[in-house]
Amino acid sequence: MSLIDALNWRYAVKKMNGQPVEQEKVDKIIAAAHLAPTSSGLQPFKVIVVTNQELKEKIAPIAFNQSQVIDSSHLLIFAANENYTEEGIDAVFNRMNTERGLPLDATDAYKTQLKGMILSRTAEENFNHAARQAYIGFGIAIAEAALLKVDATPMEGFNGPALDELLGLDKKGLKSVTLLPLGNRDEAGDWLVNLKKVRSPKEEFLIEFK
Amino acid sequence: MSLIDALNWRYAVKKMNGQPVEQEKVDKIIAAAHLAPTSSGLQPFKVIVVTNQELKEKIAPIAFNQSQVIDSSHLLIFAANENYTEEGIDAVFNRMNTERGLPLDATDAYKTQLKGMILSRTAEENFNHAARQAYIGFGIAIAEAALLKVDATPMEGFNGPALDELLGLDKKGLKSVTLLPLGNRDEAGDWLVNLKKVRSPKEEFLIEFK
Repeated sequence: MSLIDALNWRYAVKKMNGQPVEQEKVDKIIAAAHLAPTSSGLQPFKVIVVTNQELKEKIAPIAFNQSQVIDSSHLLIFAANENYTEEGIDAVFNRMNTERGLPLDATDAYKTQLKGMILSRTAEENFNHAARQAYIGFGIAIAEAALLKVDATPMEGFNGPALDELLGLDKKGLKSVTLLPLGNRDEAGDWLVNLKKVRSPKEEFLIEFK
Repeated sequence: MSLIDALNWRYAVKKMNGQPVEQEKVDKIIAAAHLAPTSSGLQPFKVIVVTNQELKEKIAPIAFNQSQVIDSSHLLIFAANENYTEEGIDAVFNRMNTERGLPLDATDAYKTQLKGMILSRTAEENFNHAARQAYIGFGIAIAEAALLKVDATPMEGFNGPALDELLGLDKKGLKSVTLLPLGNRDEAGDWLVNLKKVRSPKEEFLIEFK
């Protein structure tokens, strides 16, 4: 299936039927997010997977009781770093150079410049930057889910700080930014399943300079 | 090709060879971004495509003279709405209900609640929210480019306000957030082409609650 066909197949499923998604497919969706490009390769986000039903039930009220939290088999949470740190940047470049068989100082000039830029920004600016990187992975995960015919509902409607506290993400320097429950659509119970997918006209979306 | 294989094939091409990407493939990449899900379907971003060589040459210094701006055949620019407006939200819901054959007021309760939330936020909060939606489309465009074996380099290194002024995006209420030049890798001239793709270990990226 082409990605265009997959994107036309997918929709923000409102009601899932509780049937589990194959773990192999979930692994591919996570791998796709993991392969997403990020600014300077810093990968300032993580993916959290919740399969524990009891925990999903605790998360539901934090997400305005949207039923997909409970009826998905795998609840993915994308969480961005609350800030960048010098140690974190060093670790990324050390790993990169080591895995590439380069001297550890091979990228020092670039790294110094990058640190100068990043570490002079406020924590809020850096979190916003990290969150955008998380959204690249989020977009790519949505694409992979659609290609694998796994239903996935992008959800921003939840209380981030409450979720972070419940899962201890705050203690890891992470802030959850979006949810992606994975499951199977309940066609009989979902009001959205048969409604047309609507997008702006192409001529509104696209601006060309020829 | 699977998306995982495609993501392993892609990299942030540093040197392109000036050969054009087929328009049919570019159209698919734009269509994929256009099909990206966004918060409440508001689609608060646009894609700008620059093929005019003279204009790309004017953009190059705004993007720190990164050569891909000039050596790509199609320079995509993702630009987010600087804010949400009541008129814009009304237009989205009117179109959605019309295309779905529903009464214009079918979604009024939800729309009123949504407006209350969005229109009480600051312009900066709304721009940050819109930018994240643009990054979903950006991630999906990157996925589609990779699947079509089109080289694409995600680039955040540019002077946004200068680019917005040059292209008149500021007058349209848009702020450019990221670039995606499309082209073909120059294998002989690209220092990055043969270096290993490096990602954090999976056990660092993934947190599981079983």
